[in-house]
Amino acid sequence: MALRDGRLKKGLHGAFLRVNQSIDVDRKLYREDLRGSAAYARALRKRGILTADELRLISEGLTSIEAEIEKGTFEFREEDEDIHMNIERRLQELIGDAAHKLHTGRSRNEQVVLDERLYIMDSVETLKERLDTLFRALVEKAKLHLTTIVPSYTHMRQAQAVSLAHLFLAYYHALKRDRDRLVDFEKRLKVLPLGSGAVAGSSIGIDRDFLKKTLGFKSLSRNSIDAISTRDFMIEFQYICVSLFLTLSRMAEDIIIFSSEEFGFYTLPDELSTTSSLMPQKKNPDSLELIRGKTSRIIGNLLAIITLVKGTPYTYNRDFQEDKEGLFDTAESCSDALDLMSEVMRGMGVNEKSVNRALESSKGALFATDVADYLVEKGLPFREAHAVVGSIVRHADENNLKFGDISLDSYKTFSPLFNEDVYDLFDYIRSVNSHDVIGGTALKRVAEEIKRIEEELKK
Amino acid sequence: MALRDGRLKKGLHGAFLRVNQSIDVDRKLYREDLRGSAAYARALRKRGILTADELRLISEGLTSIEAEIEKGTFEFREEDEDIHMNIERRLQELIGDAAHKLHTGRSRNEQVVLDERLYIMDSVETLKERLDTLFRALVEKAKLHLTTIVPSYTHMRQAQAVSLAHLFLAYYHALKRDRDRLVDFEKRLKVLPLGSGAVAGSSIGIDRDFLKKTLGFKSLSRNSIDAISTRDFMIEFQYICVSLFLTLSRMAEDIIIFSSEEFGFYTLPDELSTTSSLMPQKKNPDSLELIRGKTSRIIGNLLAIITLVKGTPYTYNRDFQEDKEGLFDTAESCSDALDLMSEVMRGMGVNEKSVNRALESSKGALFATDVADYLVEKGLPFREAHAVVGSIVRHADENNLKFGDISLDSYKTFSPLFNEDVYDLFDYIRSVNSHDVIGGTALKRVAEEIKRIEEELKK
Amino acid sequence: MALRDGRLKKGLHGAFLRVNQSIDVDRKLYREDLRGSAAYARALRKRGILTADELRLISEGLTSIEAEIEKGTFEFREEDEDIHMNIERRLQELIGDAAHKLHTGRSRNEQVVLDERLYIMDSVETLKERLDTLFRALVEKAKLHLTTIVPSYTHMRQAQAVSLAHLFLAYYHALKRDRDRLVDFEKRLKVLPLGSGAVAGSSIGIDRDFLKKTLGFKSLSRNSIDAISTRDFMIEFQYICVSLFLTLSRMAEDIIIFSSEEFGFYTLPDELSTTSSLMPQKKNPDSLELIRGKTSRIIGNLLAIITLVKGTPYTYNRDFQEDKEGLFDTAESCSDALDLMSEVMRGMGVNEKSVNRALESSKGALFATDVADYLVEKGLPFREAHAVVGSIVRHADENNLKFGDISLDSYKTFSPLFNEDVYDLFDYIRSVNSHDVIGGTALKRVAEEIKRIEEELKK
Amino acid sequence: MALRDGRLKKGLHGAFLRVNQSIDVDRKLYREDLRGSAAYARALRKRGILTADELRLISEGLTSIEAEIEKGTFEFREEDEDIHMNIERRLQELIGDAAHKLHTGRSRNEQVVLDERLYIMDSVETLKERLDTLFRALVEKAKLHLTTIVPSYTHMRQAQAVSLAHLFLAYYHALKRDRDRLVDFEKRLKVLPLGSGAVAGSSIGIDRDFLKKTLGFKSLSRNSIDAISTRDFMIEFQYICVSLFLTLSRMAEDIIIFSSEEFGFYTLPDELSTTSSLMPQKKNPDSLELIRGKTSRIIGNLLAIITLVKGTPYTYNRDFQEDKEGLFDTAESCSDALDLMSEVMRGMGVNEKSVNRALESSKGALFATDVADYLVEKGLPFREAHAVVGSIVRHADENNLKFGDISLDSYKTFSPLFNEDVYDLFDYIRSVNSHDVIGGTALKRVAEEIKRIEEELKK
Repeated sequence: MALRDGRLKKGLHGAFLRVNQSIDVDRKLYREDLRGSAAYARALRKRGILTADELRLISEGLTSIEAEIEKGTFEFREEDEDIHMNIERRLQELIGDAAHKLHTGRSRNEQVVLDERLYIMDSVETLKERLDTLFRALVEKAKLHLTTIVPSYTHMRQAQAVSLAHLFLAYYHALKRDRDRLVDFEKRLKVLPLGSGAVAGSSIGIDRDFLKKTLGFKSLSRNSIDAISTRDFMIEFQYICVSLFLTLSRMAEDIIIFSSEEFGFYTLPDELSTTSSLMPQKKNPDSLELIRGKTSRIIGNLLAIITLVKGTPYTYNRDFQEDKEGLFDTAESCSDALDLMSEVMRGMGVNEKSVNRALESSKGALFATDVADYLVEKGLPFREAHAVVGSIVRHADENNLKFGDISLDSYKTFSPLFNEDVYDLFDYIRSVNSHDVIGGTALKRVAEEIKRIEEELKK
Repeated sequence: MALRDGRLKKGLHGAFLRVNQSIDVDRKLYREDLRGSAAYARALRKRGILTADELRLISEGLTSIEAEIEKGTFEFREEDEDIHMNIERRLQELIGDAAHKLHTGRSRNEQVVLDERLYIMDSVETLKERLDTLFRALVEKAKLHLTTIVPSYTHMRQAQAVSLAHLFLAYYHALKRDRDRLVDFEKRLKVLPLGSGAVAGSSIGIDRDFLKKTLGFKSLSRNSIDAISTRDFMIEFQYICVSLFLTLSRMAEDIIIFSSEEFGFYTLPDELSTTSSLMPQKKNPDSLELIRGKTSRIIGNLLAIITLVKGTPYTYNRDFQEDKEGLFDTAESCSDALDLMSEVMRGMGVNEKSVNRALESSKGALFATDVADYLVEKGLPFREAHAVVGSIVRHADENNLKFGDISLDSYKTFSPLFNEDVYDLFDYIRSVNSHDVIGGTALKRVAEEIKRIEEELKK
Repeated sequence: MALRDGRLKKGLHGAFLRVNQSIDVDRKLYREDLRGSAAYARALRKRGILTADELRLISEGLTSIEAEIEKGTFEFREEDEDIHMNIERRLQELIGDAAHKLHTGRSRNEQVVLDERLYIMDSVETLKERLDTLFRALVEKAKLHLTTIVPSYTHMRQAQAVSLAHLFLAYYHALKRDRDRLVDFEKRLKVLPLGSGAVAGSSIGIDRDFLKKTLGFKSLSRNSIDAISTRDFMIEFQYICVSLFLTLSRMAEDIIIFSSEEFGFYTLPDELSTTSSLMPQKKNPDSLELIRGKTSRIIGNLLAIITLVKGTPYTYNRDFQEDKEGLFDTAESCSDALDLMSEVMRGMGVNEKSVNRALESSKGALFATDVADYLVEKGLPFREAHAVVGSIVRHADENNLKFGDISLDSYKTFSPLFNEDVYDLFDYIRSVNSHDVIGGTALKRVAEEIKRIEEELKK
Repeated sequence: MALRDGRLKKGLHGAFLRVNQSIDVDRKLYREDLRGSAAYARALRKRGILTADELRLISEGLTSIEAEIEKGTFEFREEDEDIHMNIERRLQELIGDAAHKLHTGRSRNEQVVLDERLYIMDSVETLKERLDTLFRALVEKAKLHLTTIVPSYTHMRQAQAVSLAHLFLAYYHALKRDRDRLVDFEKRLKVLPLGSGAVAGSSIGIDRDFLKKTLGFKSLSRNSIDAISTRDFMIEFQYICVSLFLTLSRMAEDIIIFSSEEFGFYTLPDELSTTSSLMPQKKNPDSLELIRGKTSRIIGNLLAIITLVKGTPYTYNRDFQEDKEGLFDTAESCSDALDLMSEVMRGMGVNEKSVNRALESSKGALFATDVADYLVEKGLPFREAHAVVGSIVRHADENNLKFGDISLDSYKTFSPLFNEDVYDLFDYIRSVNSHDVIGGTALKRVAEEIKRIEEELKK
């Protein structure tokens, strides 16, 4: 007998059946649902609602169902709507009437958020591991390229010379904050909703502390209405994934541009590239484009869950069925993208020849701030020094001169403060080392930072 | 031999393989892809690139593949990346080397937008039909309830009495504009991209007019770079679906509230309702909540495709692989939701008793504007009449009086303009009929509008 | 001389001038910018770049500028682009050439994120205070309505009887998590970016620890590229505001519906309502509609900053100019909405008569779960009890009977387990108290929770 | 006396006053509001509600108010909430009680959508003009660079040689479709809502046809509930602006990358560039970054209005107050961005030396498809030709050879079909001209297309 048969006279309309079922999507939660039910059965036994035999029957039944699903022999039925009712139905088939007791005092409203929390708890673990792997790849690459000097870019224009390691560590820092966000989030995630009933709290005095420990939660929800109404844990998780993806997308954009024929700084490994179906010469950075492209979907998923929640009054509304597809997509895409980015970082080569060509092509403009600093040291107020150097740049540009090739006499026409020692400025290592503060690109600062991060990663 | 083998030394990395393949998603386009290839083969024959025999082989091969896919015997392979390459590979298995000629001068860049346009062309047809079905349901319901007078609501507060038919037709008008948008959109949709090559245009002089006619397009793209770079047709389609869903969501919200125990205006058929797994008395309006909930996903999908396109330079970028999942979801959800809403409109009952209770409970406040109009007719400037009636409402409220029960003497204390005829105002049909302009709720205006729409639907 | 004059030959084009300036928006940051400059001047003095006299001049100049801005006499100029350059220009007018030294080794890239971080640090303090005020209003209302029993709603349908206090505390819990998020966020917010230079780190060895302490930060950014590239702190702040607004929006929706004529549970104070310009009887819940409506803007702002960041490669890009307008709007709207919701909670009345009418109108269906629990206690498996009660509900509905009016004989036809004691169930206080777990609506549980929260708020 | 004073006992609460007023935002609609009122006064006169004298007074009053606002002497008051009530109040001050008649039978619900529609009607005209200006700039540039051959890029990798004009026309085509969308949209925009009353239709039989003609509309709304409930015209307008901005953003991205030091294809005029406050050598493409950045805000605005509408039941809800700020921002930003992009296109230089360097650096790989086509003409199936050329590319790459420098013997080891005439392929003009279909980059096709577009623009 279907759940509805007592209360409602007619079966579901065909057009509704298709939309009403969520089993296509929420079947992914089978492991979480089975774990939750197994724990709940034990709590029912403690409460005296199940006999020892019934508990054994139920436990074995749930184990069988897990095996069936994993073997692919479990029959998911649309008319049983969702993963909870599919499992309930199958349990009844396997063990008979004892199955009917499992749902005593429990509602799907709490069951679904339990399953979702368990699913996200697993996902958070996975993401933390994948992030650590990527961190190691970034640090390895940074160590390798501590003394590789590259132009940094602001506005996609050459700015100042930096250690390439410094750029790789910038990526690390951005992603590390997302890892910290995941850790903060776990306090709010690992809150057991079970025991909230449909909306008013369990009416059978279930032992919530026992359930909490059994299922790996850290605390109990303290308001049953809140527990079944909120989806903020799904939004927080998806927000963190968006934050993380934004950095991956920007990294991808950097690498795509820097590995173009015109920049040529990086070379991508063949096994992370594809060719064209029409143009046989192409070697395309699809792995990175896909990371960048997936970011859009992940942003769309975040908006979908936000808009979903916005449009509902308290407490549970069926709109919430739509909360799962985006969650699964985001969690899996995030894990895939981290994995792929680790491979890219590991496999990527740096073409020092192209990098040097870019440094040279600047004709010394990358030293412009150094020259301004030089004038400041000689006593010129900075804003005036800035103007002087601006004029030198324009002069060099118009006459196609490198900074190092401008004569001292010529320099002196721009400012009498120039001396022979101006030519000492035009050394990239010296320039890089002049940024000698915590967070600066001076090589010893970067080296210290690498060491510090390595220590942290060991923990 | 895989496409990549000539150009690239190594196979795909495992982490990349999973992300690189899109066959899980784009297999939905098999029919479109086969149609496109069949037409292209005929054009290659016209151009002399295929022999008659080769054309025959290819045509038969494509037909066999369609049959295999529909029977479920076709083997989709991740390593063949997408629907185009899966079909190409299978064709080669079936008919041998002739298959290798099919892709002469054709690129996946143009093939994928061809398939997407064909898919959307079909979807637009479906949506137009489903809209027409819903229009008929709305008009039927409007005819049935022309003389059912209900409170209209602004700010979720009783405003003025209207014919219930007038509300149903409001839904019609909103949705009709979306149907008009679909029609306008078709001009931009039915533009053949095939013949654009990878980016620079076909280099084999393919007959684009022949392809256009064969595949049901109306015009040719006039710039190959634009043809393979734009996804604006996907955005326009999804925008229209969002627009349409917004009306469905607001209708759903109306019906959910109006069928609550407290309002009780509508009753929903059992076959479009569900019950609770814990609370046996519940009869929940899940069909409507799901429509409202799906709206969020559809909005998320729109944002995803917009953000995707925003983040890419010209021309084709692999990010675009991510453009399909949201499209399919939106197109199918839209069709499902229209179908479901038609059933809701058809099956929904109107509980006149509850409606009348609501009218009565207003104690005449629904006539407040009528009273103000009355005073205006007697010569009071409107803004003053508004203030007078505001005071009467407050008086009635504080003394728990109905408008019809306030004594004439009492009315006169608010304004000497009141006369015995004020009591004639308190008749809902009269009130409704006083809104006698095009677009107003006067019954004869609504009846005319019903007739006009029925004529339109016949076309 | 304008900043650009050394380097670039021509002044700004008119069309560009209008878009290039941000002073209309970022003038809001004047206080933060002045604070940052005052601290930087002191650090320059420590570094020996400013003389004591120059420091004094600069400090006095900055103080004068603050006074001018607050008096409204400061002239903001579009051609000076932004708040930083407007202040720099004015400082030069006021104190002459010493002003030109203030920018030694400092870039707008770091200055703007410093200002933004300071602005958000203030906003977080404000939001925490406003949240605490709202919490107190919620707890007060909960204390007042501990024993007010109302129907709870799932799917906008009556579910189970709960204490109204329980609903108010549900709102508290949701908002409390957002307060916790703000606290977690402060770790990532209070990181000093100053000393990062344009991108490579300060080249003048500025004392960053001194700046950190002076400006109220907790730690130093450890990578200059990351420091000027990231906007994740703006996204995290706006995400938390969205999360917070989602709860406010849902509360608003609840209150709008519950204060409708048909529900009538709540009455809103006149001073938080408006009337209609045409319909004099209207008393509209505009304050709540505006909170709900503003939520959309806040969501749009979040999406805007996310999309902005997504579309940029490292490091700083001018796109980031667009990051402020949404931030200010979100921060201010959030503070306003919290303030307004506190007033609503304080001013809102509860109409016990209407609440009781709603309870009565359920004809006992609100006890359906109690009846099922009763049968379970008598030994019936829950799923069977559920079906039995479903049939009773349908029977009551069709015969227009209350649960308490169904005869015992009639009950026994549904299940022989029914006895005289079934009639004891139909008592709302008893029903509420049966949900006796942590987080349940049993009155003593709710009372304990109120006490616990009051203790917390005292801290 | 304030509007509310009759109905409500207390004035607005301070916290509400601030949120309730919209005059800061909607004052922008003053011209539209005055036009609407002037027309409405004339219709009231026709209906006999105003005397000739009253009409004259009102008309003169409205004219005075317009003058006051434009001189800056009009006092906008928060306590009058919005532009409608501010004007109504001032009119009363100026002309006395006749002002009180102006609002007879008219509601702010219809007035606000009238104003919004009028505002958008103006904006659409502006955007069409700005688009036409940009079209002319694009066509001019295309004419200038018909024979400038550049690499086209897919996946940000060199693909095939094209005429630079072909790329400029691709931008034209994308934007032209948005212009067509604006034209289609006007059918739905120019629908007069006035006469809809608060929700049920005018109750004074106002002459809607007269209003339509006077105010420049094309048709009448046919359902009063729909007329005041819908915001779909605001969403459609903003969607079209997003669509348009997406092309501008992608163009901006193209130009930023192509004008980088490493590509060097384009040079930007000084008057559309800025420099850095710290790095004096910088010449940054801020104009383009700002266009790209503004796109995010415009997307956020679209999402805001969509989310706003989603969350409301029928009919008018005060949430709609929040519909204006984003609209104004989008309309103005769109017009600014088009203006700026026209300047960029006009001012941008093309550096043929850098373009040629890029062509050369490809070592002939840009001819890879030509070589494959060559083999196809000699009888090799395309897919095999693709593989052969892939191997040649790899060979050339590994041996640092240009295609033109590979010996014929060497070619023959890849395929016996190669002959002396293979060397004829390596000519960019020949390659470009081989794409000889409608929409292809063959020079005569591009020239024809330029001519066709010029004709169109003349109309």
